[in-house]
Amino acid sequence: MSITQTNYAKRRSRFSRVLKKLPFEGMLLTHLPNIRYLTGFSGSSASLIVRGDDYDLLSDSRYTTQIGQECSGLQLQIRHVDETMLDLLIRVIQTLGLKAIGVEGSTLSVDYFLTLNDKLANVELIPKTGLVEELRMVKDSEEIAQIRFSINAAQRGFQRMLTSLKLGQTEVEIRNELEYALRGFGAEGTSFDTIVAIDSQAALPHAKPGTKVLGKSSVLLIDYGARMTSGYRCDITRTMVAGNPSAKFEKVYNVVLEAQQAAIEALKPGVSGAAIDKIARDIISKAGYGKSFGHGLGHGFGLEIHEALRLAATSQQELQPGMVVTVEPGIYLEGWGGVRIEDDILITRSGHEVLTNLPKTLDAMSIYL
Amino acid sequence: MSITQTNYAKRRSRFSRVLKKLPFEGMLLTHLPNIRYLTGFSGSSASLIVRGDDYDLLSDSRYTTQIGQECSGLQLQIRHVDETMLDLLIRVIQTLGLKAIGVEGSTLSVDYFLTLNDKLANVELIPKTGLVEELRMVKDSEEIAQIRFSINAAQRGFQRMLTSLKLGQTEVEIRNELEYALRGFGAEGTSFDTIVAIDSQAALPHAKPGTKVLGKSSVLLIDYGARMTSGYRCDITRTMVAGNPSAKFEKVYNVVLEAQQAAIEALKPGVSGAAIDKIARDIISKAGYGKSFGHGLGHGFGLEIHEALRLAATSQQELQPGMVVTVEPGIYLEGWGGVRIEDDILITRSGHEVLTNLPKTLDAMSIYL
Repeated sequence: MSITQTNYAKRRSRFSRVLKKLPFEGMLLTHLPNIRYLTGFSGSSASLIVRGDDYDLLSDSRYTTQIGQECSGLQLQIRHVDETMLDLLIRVIQTLGLKAIGVEGSTLSVDYFLTLNDKLANVELIPKTGLVEELRMVKDSEEIAQIRFSINAAQRGFQRMLTSLKLGQTEVEIRNELEYALRGFGAEGTSFDTIVAIDSQAALPHAKPGTKVLGKSSVLLIDYGARMTSGYRCDITRTMVAGNPSAKFEKVYNVVLEAQQAAIEALKPGVSGAAIDKIARDIISKAGYGKSFGHGLGHGFGLEIHEALRLAATSQQELQPGMVVTVEPGIYLEGWGGVRIEDDILITRSGHEVLTNLPKTLDAMSIYL
Repeated sequence: MSITQTNYAKRRSRFSRVLKKLPFEGMLLTHLPNIRYLTGFSGSSASLIVRGDDYDLLSDSRYTTQIGQECSGLQLQIRHVDETMLDLLIRVIQTLGLKAIGVEGSTLSVDYFLTLNDKLANVELIPKTGLVEELRMVKDSEEIAQIRFSINAAQRGFQRMLTSLKLGQTEVEIRNELEYALRGFGAEGTSFDTIVAIDSQAALPHAKPGTKVLGKSSVLLIDYGARMTSGYRCDITRTMVAGNPSAKFEKVYNVVLEAQQAAIEALKPGVSGAAIDKIARDIISKAGYGKSFGHGLGHGFGLEIHEALRLAATSQQELQPGMVVTVEPGIYLEGWGGVRIEDDILITRSGHEVLTNLPKTLDAMSIYL
């Protein structure tokens, strides 16, 4: 929903143009977010075969009606009750008479690949990864609108959750209130498993909410996002402190904030992911916390929570207008806790636009309960 | 959590015994639920290399502390910041000096497979799927306890949701209340994307909650489950009607209920999945709705929502004590709606035990709001 059929058709013709330059007759797509991007299909079982401007969507009868509601301009191939998806794939590829097709090497399983090779002796399968992902890297205006809706739901939900925050609540209870609140503002669900981490748990970049309790001077790290029914999502982190911050929290927090702001300032077309990562990493290293920042600085997102491009030491790709990325430096100190601050930023022709605007000064992060 | 380290160690020695009978030195596991089953690791990035009784868990630094909390008895291999997971895999396989290893063909990607083959020219990679899945098919007592907790949270959550049900609520609003309630009873999240389908939407076996509104004589189908922090989950469906059921609803409902009860009655060790499916399908066909029941009758579940074995026309595998399966016949009538009734059943030595016990007589399904 919310992405128009016109837009899906436009994406498909863009993809068909890419394919026509490649030395194979068609492409078998198996990565569901790629299929959703090109067709709107939001179910959990499908393959898409592309030949020129023709798109065959392969699925099963549970989804026949849904595909009618969500998609248009496709040939629909529904597997028979006594057929597997693999049987259907073989049947359709044979019927279409394809001789050389690209396959998505990053998601097609070895079992499927070997069986297709075996049963389709006259068909050459050519692994080719990232074609749709490359289109998805630059968002169109409908996608950016969906991401803005997602951020709106996420931020309003966060602020409602804050109004119910109490000393004595566990991480799990805070998570439950937050996720309920997101939905009240239109989210279909979360962008990924919400992280709510108190005190020493905040030292784990991917902490699972547990039984730790919010105390009088606790650190509270929340990393979360709202997923809309369109599949688009966002990714936000705030680190708060109950009561007045300790000197240590203040020091660590301000280093992370400075690193984040400097990296955001530098975002613009033409700069590489590595260059942006370095800006934040240098500030954190200079403050003596280099070893406590073990992950990349940020990543693209959209239909998936981690998409190209990455802001990381190994990322030579350059930013382009229409990309959206997170910027999320962190410092993690085992036994004590951690601080991460994360915002979502759109790259524009002239530079960038910060899409998220939850407060993040140290002052605003001190919560008095 | 909740599954003991002793149990993980026991599962690993059982798996090592299976491996020792196979003609390769080790196995590379890449399917995360299989890794979780053998080690307890619940994160989103890991591979597991098994040689004899030795288990090497490969992950990244975000998870170092978490692995310390969740796992024991493993060698830990954390990738360097400038290494990819694939680099790490190559390094570890080379260091261990393996010459022939099994790989999980159903989840290993073609790209990984081809690159490993290329970079490890002296190592033979042998696709072998389903080894851990076969162990997982029969649940141990700790798993059954977790599934019971999950059912308890799901059923109490459902009953709380019923108390807040009102005419005029949308599918999305009902879903939000249900999921919030599950969590109040200890669920970490849902087993899968909750289905709440009103009237014509109930004709879609995999409907997504939307804006349809609960009216005075609406059909309301809810298919949902609770996932515990241990990863274990359940799967329940009830179909209700607002006010007095129409003659058509009553007829369809009673056919589905009769089919479900007859299939459940027949569950015991030694019977095939196909035989059970046939019992339900015959009743539905005899009543004239055979073409309106387009999916299999049921499936195993546990750490994943769909596990072996399947109750379906093509399933020749036999039931064994310790398996847990859903039984979920349905009749779907486009434009009108649908009825599905689903319970979770444990296969015992002497027959079976129905684990779920939400009311399901037609009487109990008529809700007066």
